[in-house]
Amino acid sequence: MSESSPVGKIKVGIVGASGYGGVQLVRLLTQHPEVELVYLGGDSSAGQPYTDIYPHLADSVNLTVEAVDLGEIAQRCQAVFLSLPNGLAYTMAPTLLERGCRVLDLSADYRFENLNTYQSWYGGDRTDQTTAVEAVYGLPELFRDRIRNARLVGCPGCYPTASLLGIAPLLKQGLAQPETLIIDAKSGTSGGGRVAKTGMLLAEASNSLGAYGVARHRHTPEIEQICTHLASQEVTVQFTPHLIPMVRGILATIYATLRDPGLVRDDLLTIYSAFYRSSPWVTVLPSGTYPQTKWAWGTNRCYIGLETDARTGRVVVMSAIDNLMKGQASQAVQCFNLMMGLEEGLGLPTTTFYP
Amino acid sequence: MSESSPVGKIKVGIVGASGYGGVQLVRLLTQHPEVELVYLGGDSSAGQPYTDIYPHLADSVNLTVEAVDLGEIAQRCQAVFLSLPNGLAYTMAPTLLERGCRVLDLSADYRFENLNTYQSWYGGDRTDQTTAVEAVYGLPELFRDRIRNARLVGCPGCYPTASLLGIAPLLKQGLAQPETLIIDAKSGTSGGGRVAKTGMLLAEASNSLGAYGVARHRHTPEIEQICTHLASQEVTVQFTPHLIPMVRGILATIYATLRDPGLVRDDLLTIYSAFYRSSPWVTVLPSGTYPQTKWAWGTNRCYIGLETDARTGRVVVMSAIDNLMKGQASQAVQCFNLMMGLEEGLGLPTTTFYP
Amino acid sequence: MSESSPVGKIKVGIVGASGYGGVQLVRLLTQHPEVELVYLGGDSSAGQPYTDIYPHLADSVNLTVEAVDLGEIAQRCQAVFLSLPNGLAYTMAPTLLERGCRVLDLSADYRFENLNTYQSWYGGDRTDQTTAVEAVYGLPELFRDRIRNARLVGCPGCYPTASLLGIAPLLKQGLAQPETLIIDAKSGTSGGGRVAKTGMLLAEASNSLGAYGVARHRHTPEIEQICTHLASQEVTVQFTPHLIPMVRGILATIYATLRDPGLVRDDLLTIYSAFYRSSPWVTVLPSGTYPQTKWAWGTNRCYIGLETDARTGRVVVMSAIDNLMKGQASQAVQCFNLMMGLEEGLGLPTTTFYP
Amino acid sequence: MSESSPVGKIKVGIVGASGYGGVQLVRLLTQHPEVELVYLGGDSSAGQPYTDIYPHLADSVNLTVEAVDLGEIAQRCQAVFLSLPNGLAYTMAPTLLERGCRVLDLSADYRFENLNTYQSWYGGDRTDQTTAVEAVYGLPELFRDRIRNARLVGCPGCYPTASLLGIAPLLKQGLAQPETLIIDAKSGTSGGGRVAKTGMLLAEASNSLGAYGVARHRHTPEIEQICTHLASQEVTVQFTPHLIPMVRGILATIYATLRDPGLVRDDLLTIYSAFYRSSPWVTVLPSGTYPQTKWAWGTNRCYIGLETDARTGRVVVMSAIDNLMKGQASQAVQCFNLMMGLEEGLGLPTTTFYP
Repeated sequence: MSESSPVGKIKVGIVGASGYGGVQLVRLLTQHPEVELVYLGGDSSAGQPYTDIYPHLADSVNLTVEAVDLGEIAQRCQAVFLSLPNGLAYTMAPTLLERGCRVLDLSADYRFENLNTYQSWYGGDRTDQTTAVEAVYGLPELFRDRIRNARLVGCPGCYPTASLLGIAPLLKQGLAQPETLIIDAKSGTSGGGRVAKTGMLLAEASNSLGAYGVARHRHTPEIEQICTHLASQEVTVQFTPHLIPMVRGILATIYATLRDPGLVRDDLLTIYSAFYRSSPWVTVLPSGTYPQTKWAWGTNRCYIGLETDARTGRVVVMSAIDNLMKGQASQAVQCFNLMMGLEEGLGLPTTTFYP
Repeated sequence: MSESSPVGKIKVGIVGASGYGGVQLVRLLTQHPEVELVYLGGDSSAGQPYTDIYPHLADSVNLTVEAVDLGEIAQRCQAVFLSLPNGLAYTMAPTLLERGCRVLDLSADYRFENLNTYQSWYGGDRTDQTTAVEAVYGLPELFRDRIRNARLVGCPGCYPTASLLGIAPLLKQGLAQPETLIIDAKSGTSGGGRVAKTGMLLAEASNSLGAYGVARHRHTPEIEQICTHLASQEVTVQFTPHLIPMVRGILATIYATLRDPGLVRDDLLTIYSAFYRSSPWVTVLPSGTYPQTKWAWGTNRCYIGLETDARTGRVVVMSAIDNLMKGQASQAVQCFNLMMGLEEGLGLPTTTFYP
Repeated sequence: MSESSPVGKIKVGIVGASGYGGVQLVRLLTQHPEVELVYLGGDSSAGQPYTDIYPHLADSVNLTVEAVDLGEIAQRCQAVFLSLPNGLAYTMAPTLLERGCRVLDLSADYRFENLNTYQSWYGGDRTDQTTAVEAVYGLPELFRDRIRNARLVGCPGCYPTASLLGIAPLLKQGLAQPETLIIDAKSGTSGGGRVAKTGMLLAEASNSLGAYGVARHRHTPEIEQICTHLASQEVTVQFTPHLIPMVRGILATIYATLRDPGLVRDDLLTIYSAFYRSSPWVTVLPSGTYPQTKWAWGTNRCYIGLETDARTGRVVVMSAIDNLMKGQASQAVQCFNLMMGLEEGLGLPTTTFYP
Repeated sequence: MSESSPVGKIKVGIVGASGYGGVQLVRLLTQHPEVELVYLGGDSSAGQPYTDIYPHLADSVNLTVEAVDLGEIAQRCQAVFLSLPNGLAYTMAPTLLERGCRVLDLSADYRFENLNTYQSWYGGDRTDQTTAVEAVYGLPELFRDRIRNARLVGCPGCYPTASLLGIAPLLKQGLAQPETLIIDAKSGTSGGGRVAKTGMLLAEASNSLGAYGVARHRHTPEIEQICTHLASQEVTVQFTPHLIPMVRGILATIYATLRDPGLVRDDLLTIYSAFYRSSPWVTVLPSGTYPQTKWAWGTNRCYIGLETDARTGRVVVMSAIDNLMKGQASQAVQCFNLMMGLEEGLGLPTTTFYP
């Protein structure tokens, strides 16, 4: 089939196309070999040619943002990515599913099995427990098989992605004491979205560094839900996010006390490598090499390095991703590939442009 | 007189204290040996302790922002700095002057002798020609004596300050052909003020560079007015501002064709050094040294370097300042010192913390 | 033919693989559908696995850097990219050509038709005039047909690429007065290469901005050579480079006096669009839109915007590229595609990840 | 006594004046009201006018760097700052002390009471135990009285300063379990000094973030020595430094399990405020406010904020300083003031220029 007539390609739409998640999806999906991007939705920018919002796409994208009409979307799209602020997806997903669409939600709305947890951290008045229970947590390295059979995927938050990929082997193999888990996470400012806030101005956020949401960031229960699943016991974590003067990238520095203080770095690296053997997007680094976030810039990769400390009995795991890619949009496309029976890595960038 | 009882100090107020110009003034004036800062005004933040807006001043400033009441201000202050968006100062200055205050305006309102020029570039409906004519353009290196006798000073824009200090010797001494003047200026993003705009987010503005306002930036007529004065002939300049991914600093790269193509770099450096002999805030750099904007960071200095090009017959002048200091707040304090009969450099930072 | 057995692919080598040009080439060529990368050479890092130098390539590249042996290279490679400091390529290219390799040189060695020009700006003692005359200047938008038939391509410098793409329509169509050309160029620090220099430290170069090489930068004669060709008359330009606190990207702001002052912006945009109609990598932006360098980050694109100024009779052209891509490595691959009879855009990134 | 004739001022020298510590000291000491800076020493730059190295000081400093001659120094200076790589100060300090100088060492050489600890982390062959024992650890907030009587001060490292000021009230008051202490520290790149290293290039270090020296950074034993002193029991800490893409600033995020889980944020803030009541350079922030490193930029301040987490029983303390000021040079001047019987804050910058 010729490139210009994409018959047989999967018709895909994006609701919330004008934000940072949206523009990554647009870039990924217009270059995806099995996708035809047919719909861009967004109420605030409805009617605007997409390239008015992002002029760098002048020669690549020829779509106009449309007002959100669920019936229309379901008619034109086989799969829909929802890239919206929290609390909107759950007003759309049930209808879209009912009309036969596959749905990938990038917000927090479908990340929780228990809607009480959602409501106590995010608020809102949820009545869609049936839909929520059906949703699969879109972290392919942990839930690949369930994603393959899902109609609805709740894509992970950026911090939980970096944190959980770093923690999973420790908890799954019973190597660390769960109650000692501390995650000191650092993120570029694009995590705050394309929203004009004083604190996110270059003049304010550059040349500086600070923590925020200490002991109360909303990614905490999401991390705990999956940690509890991995450890088969209730897990509470200490999670502290920091804002770093850079655009993209998350580093999670994870501390835990080892159950067996005799384990050394190379033991753990062997275990991690085995754990991620069939997960090509997780790169376990050689002994003594620690990840730099820029290695992941613009890719779907997660880089992991670690160190043990015989003096304290702890392991320190460092996990680096691009918050907008593996932490958001490219991971959603990875899930989409699985849901649609495509090769998992189709259309996903593997290598950054360094430096 | 003891430090804790500032009897005899000059009582000063700032209207528009919450912006970037305001916070520089607060910092400078609280440490100024002859000033007592008694009033901070601002309608949007009225009622807020100033340290709620700028927590880093927790142990230094103990004032609350007040609503703007001109009568009240005039009663409490001998001098007032107006650090407001364009178009507001001219509704306040006449009243303040009438009641005996000295006024330093940091906006464009009092930079033009001819209000028609103001109105054609800035809009508005000005009827205060008498006041405007009285105002002195607050560039001490060119108008020191007039500032000493002024009741009202219109402080220069940031780009005009860097540009005019670089150009002045060329035009005043008739060294360059005025019609060949091109100013390619580059500014950090703090020049945009403390205003939440998408384009000024760290995520957007960092790692990038672009021009804006080409052939129509409102600092053009301000530069031309003073160039015309210096050259004693009508001067039109090409002025192009660029946004640079850094917080502070302006570099103006100035191009002009020399009248005498035989002049070489060291001739011009000698002329510049003589021109600025009694202006300690202008540092003419040694032969072959070009200014870095960070040398001026946090100071009232202007660094100037230059090069001649025998191949083209042009001179290239580079002039660097801190846009919020010599380009705004510290230059206003320099003018204040002159108006009040104080030593010109009182309270002005001379040296940056490098790097 | 299966992916794992690249029979029929073109065997390619890189000499000077460890620098920034080299690592871009490695990234581009390992993902190029018609290339098998078989050789990485470099004397200083000979013997090192390539991923020791660039750990982010851990899962992508499996080559070891080898000492440079021209005979060996010629035997194993059909085409060779030389990514070396100036003055080395001309000791290698004649031998490689003689033994049947196609050669793409990223240094300045083969950019000049007249070796006297090279020697007066770069020094060295050149005796390879025959080879130099055969070399084609690798700017496909201007010399596409000659590149198709070339055995040796001298790839353009980063500043000349941005400058010449912005200037070409003006000079080729006789729209501007050549003697008025001023290029005020701004580059990220990666242009300085992967060389440890104090002035390029983050601590020194960030938060700052300065010019360098004023009136004597070695890209000047390269720009002038092609301008002279375009204008069919001797052209001398004023060229001033600046160092910008960012990693990648060049913006050339170009000033010229129009021959016909009646021309307006939209006239020129029409002429530019026509000029670049068959050059998909040059994006002429809509009226009123100016380029941001980050739009080109990681791509082979050049974005051009422009403005006319009726007050001064000048045009201001802004041209933005990624200095390591269209300004260096991806442009070399574009030339390689042409030389090898492949589709010009094969393996070239088209779209950045914004922001 | 007039400003121009500094009779009665203390004559001071700096050995190692060309590095980042040196240039801060030069800036601070030339503006210090009771100091006459008479000597700048450094072997690598001996003979160079200081402003050749730092042109921004063109109008402020008129000294030439001299070769290091201890006899000469002792004759001309009453106090000497040694700002050298580790392992050099201990070859100079004994001689200088013997000849009557006060010595402030900014390296690690005199931070340890027990030279075995020094040697096992730093190497070297120390025989100056007598001198080492005499040295006082230059953290005035903890050892003010001892510094007042010292002839030799070993100034703290940057990370230890930020960490210890954040930890001290917890350990001194027995509020936290010492064995649970984890310090996740983040520093700007100027901490690496003015040394050309590839990894510190803007092109490499910007847009990125990574940990280094995990479980083996040499500031660990220094932190532990003082923690042990504070807790009156042996303390081992987990310390992880990270490199942040900014020039200056350290944030230490400190985790500890509280002995009494009933303590809440405001209890601890009250305790911290009391602890630092007579330490004006430590600003304990209001409830709910966390420090930004840029608040401390160019000042001698340490900003502290904290949070308790009832879910985990931990306290999270955030402590921010300028690594080159309170973390190095201005803290040394603070010690100097104490040693010389001057007012502790003389010549120390109190307020940053924000933003």
